[in-house]
Amino acid sequence: MKKFAVVLSGCGVFDGAEIYESVLTLQALERNNIEYQCFAPNIEQMHVINHLTGEVAEGESRNVLVEAARIARGEIKDLAEAKADEFDAVILPGGFGAAKNLSDFAVKGSDCAVNPELVRFIQGFADAKKPVGFVCIAPAMLPLIFGKGTKLTIGNDEETAKAIEAMGGVHVACQVDDIVVDEDKQLVTTPAYMLAGSISEAAKGINKLVDKMVSMLG
Amino acid sequence: MKKFAVVLSGCGVFDGAEIYESVLTLQALERNNIEYQCFAPNIEQMHVINHLTGEVAEGESRNVLVEAARIARGEIKDLAEAKADEFDAVILPGGFGAAKNLSDFAVKGSDCAVNPELVRFIQGFADAKKPVGFVCIAPAMLPLIFGKGTKLTIGNDEETAKAIEAMGGVHVACQVDDIVVDEDKQLVTTPAYMLAGSISEAAKGINKLVDKMVSMLG
Repeated sequence: MKKFAVVLSGCGVFDGAEIYESVLTLQALERNNIEYQCFAPNIEQMHVINHLTGEVAEGESRNVLVEAARIARGEIKDLAEAKADEFDAVILPGGFGAAKNLSDFAVKGSDCAVNPELVRFIQGFADAKKPVGFVCIAPAMLPLIFGKGTKLTIGNDEETAKAIEAMGGVHVACQVDDIVVDEDKQLVTTPAYMLAGSISEAAKGINKLVDKMVSMLG
Repeated sequence: MKKFAVVLSGCGVFDGAEIYESVLTLQALERNNIEYQCFAPNIEQMHVINHLTGEVAEGESRNVLVEAARIARGEIKDLAEAKADEFDAVILPGGFGAAKNLSDFAVKGSDCAVNPELVRFIQGFADAKKPVGFVCIAPAMLPLIFGKGTKLTIGNDEETAKAIEAMGGVHVACQVDDIVVDEDKQLVTTPAYMLAGSISEAAKGINKLVDKMVSMLG
């Protein structure tokens, strides 16, 4: 039985992992009869957003690992313990958590940095040529892990695409139901809620991403 | 196009709405081409549970509506504004939030009370003989809304079943992939994560529940 790692970035689209994308990813893995283990970094969130008003909840702080545990029903481990050689592949669902907690792309754009534990973990898959899947806004950080010339998509947002190109990435416009594959790097990306208007729309791209990753494992 | 109301009780299995059940419910509605609106009560949660450790987060407080907005990506309304005559049917996903925030069944068992806004809203569907679906532990509160003799399931947990019978309910043991229907009351229940060991297991019962409710609408 193949085993995937899934890296979450909190719980909620505006300050953490996008919930629908996370659940769709786990569902697609189950459907492919693939075991999975969720991880998240044991760090404070950049901030807490009140998801009813969209405003920053002043004075509140939450831990990324503790909040991501809500999506995983407690079955989650600290990203610091994650070892690439224990998994066949890895997927990062999106949500602003990918651009606020796992990286600071939401604030710094092309000058962003990526969480060092995440770089170390993903680098392990890259070095071993194991499949890597990034969803939604998460692919924006990929040039900092896979280097210049990395082919990826975040959908069709021109400003975000420009920032990615400034980091050395090659942005490919993509529909919500499709994926972009960097075959050389075994890297698959899909726009999901960068474009999706419904859960079923997001599902199409995420299912295709997981299916492609599974096919890469042969 | 038919329109369902979905009542959430927070965000996270141990102190709010069970995330997988909530998303599976919305997915099943989309698949049936049904429009939906999420609601939650604008009240404080009974408590906050750290989902990594399972312990109460002392000194923390969160609002049910604000947290449920994470599952709904902000597209949610105060339960106080909900009117049964604007919907064809209503569904309550489970999670401890149903037994801690929407009722206090988790603490008081058969002596529990139900949130008055929820009673008012569900009563509107009951009076109009519109389909009502309750998932997981949420059905435990049903005898207090639909009265004695109400037929329902929470799976096969004997202690919980006894408390339900003490409240006048008729508990019917049920597998995770099945539903119990009180045809007279247009009421459908399914165990979901009272028994489920995976998202796909929970999906079977929830899909069957939504399909049955849709068929009741003719």
